[in-house]
Amino acid sequence: MRNIMIDIEYDGTNYNGWQMQINGITIQQKIMEAVKKLTGEDVTINGSGRTDAKVHARGQVANFYSTSKIPIKRFPIAINHFLPDDITILEAREVPIDFHARYWAQGKIYSYQVNHQTQRSALLRNYSYHFPYQLELDKMEKAAGLLIGTHDFKGFMSSGSSVKSTVRSIYAIKIEKNKNSIWMTFEGSGFLYNMVRIMVGTLLEVGNGRRSMEAVQEALKLGNREKAGHKAPPQGLFLDKVFYPLTH
Amino acid sequence: MRNIMIDIEYDGTNYNGWQMQINGITIQQKIMEAVKKLTGEDVTINGSGRTDAKVHARGQVANFYSTSKIPIKRFPIAINHFLPDDITILEAREVPIDFHARYWAQGKIYSYQVNHQTQRSALLRNYSYHFPYQLELDKMEKAAGLLIGTHDFKGFMSSGSSVKSTVRSIYAIKIEKNKNSIWMTFEGSGFLYNMVRIMVGTLLEVGNGRRSMEAVQEALKLGNREKAGHKAPPQGLFLDKVFYPLTH
Repeated sequence: MRNIMIDIEYDGTNYNGWQMQINGITIQQKIMEAVKKLTGEDVTINGSGRTDAKVHARGQVANFYSTSKIPIKRFPIAINHFLPDDITILEAREVPIDFHARYWAQGKIYSYQVNHQTQRSALLRNYSYHFPYQLELDKMEKAAGLLIGTHDFKGFMSSGSSVKSTVRSIYAIKIEKNKNSIWMTFEGSGFLYNMVRIMVGTLLEVGNGRRSMEAVQEALKLGNREKAGHKAPPQGLFLDKVFYPLTH
Repeated sequence: MRNIMIDIEYDGTNYNGWQMQINGITIQQKIMEAVKKLTGEDVTINGSGRTDAKVHARGQVANFYSTSKIPIKRFPIAINHFLPDDITILEAREVPIDFHARYWAQGKIYSYQVNHQTQRSALLRNYSYHFPYQLELDKMEKAAGLLIGTHDFKGFMSSGSSVKSTVRSIYAIKIEKNKNSIWMTFEGSGFLYNMVRIMVGTLLEVGNGRRSMEAVQEALKLGNREKAGHKAPPQGLFLDKVFYPLTH
């Protein structure tokens, strides 16, 4: 039995998210079906975590067990042959048998694209959040500074997930302007349900002057969801990288 | 009567190109229909030039005549209301009555995205040419140097268009690597049918060692289509900007 770790890129526009479910087509399901067509095996694809409908990935990671004899270097192109063109296996590696993409994950990088032009963008419609309002980047960076570190992020989580602890560590937040887009990058130990999208909505409201620095501090201190900003829409979000001990 | 000049962004993926035709939906037609819904007028939308099926634009320019009293600043959002979300009017200006988007154009900038990663990209599938082969950028830049200037580009044109002269001037070609993409930008007085895509195919073949610098020189000197490279596919191409006397 081999344990295969795969790096995955996908355009989430036409999917109901990562996680297999009864209604709607998901990315996990498409990969499972492709592996079945390739090796004949019914495998479980363990993702590093879920992504919501319309969210994209440039570096999702998953693993699965296989008895196939296909050389590891041939796996990506062989699986891609059976995948739709909005899902791609970028790389495959053979890893220790106890490796699990979710339990072994040590950290993640997400990025988020805000389209900051007056009229909505035709080309970026599925890959960004159209926010045509005034933004002061220095205010956003100051508020981002408050989020960095180890905090209880209960105020930055959507209900509907059950987690033991709502404490997470954010290592870095980068905010970069590039033509008509503002890219925000978040690196952390892990993220609660919708946490990145709520942080993005909060930083945009601060940048626009609609929410104060004090509100952000209170959202962190009191764990009060109403003190944080709105949840930015899914299509601007990209899962860029998942860190593991063996990749360091 | 007012003459309205518009800047247009579009995602060409789902269109049969710019130019109205009997079969297939085109961008020109969609804008004509939107203006009709907005002002009630049957207008002709004069584009700066055609773009082929699947080709994109970040700065296509067109003009049309209207008796509408809508304030010029309101035109973009008002037309966008009646357009599908993969076509956007970015700006509108009132221009002299004899201005024509095609006849007044003095130059254009096109850019082309090559996706240079081993496996095809899920996210860039509609916006790039997947070219996973080895490339030497310095060779490509050298060959690009041969194309800059005023030449007879007969060897870099697809048949099927009738033009009086095949002489054009290329002012600049930029080649930039950005993560897994190589962006090529072409600025010139004008471009023959498929000329940018044939220049891209030629530069890629030179970069890959499949075509010599001498072949490029001969293609220019002899006007021989076979000496130039293959025509790169449409989905990597973007019409970025059209220059006019009044915008300088």
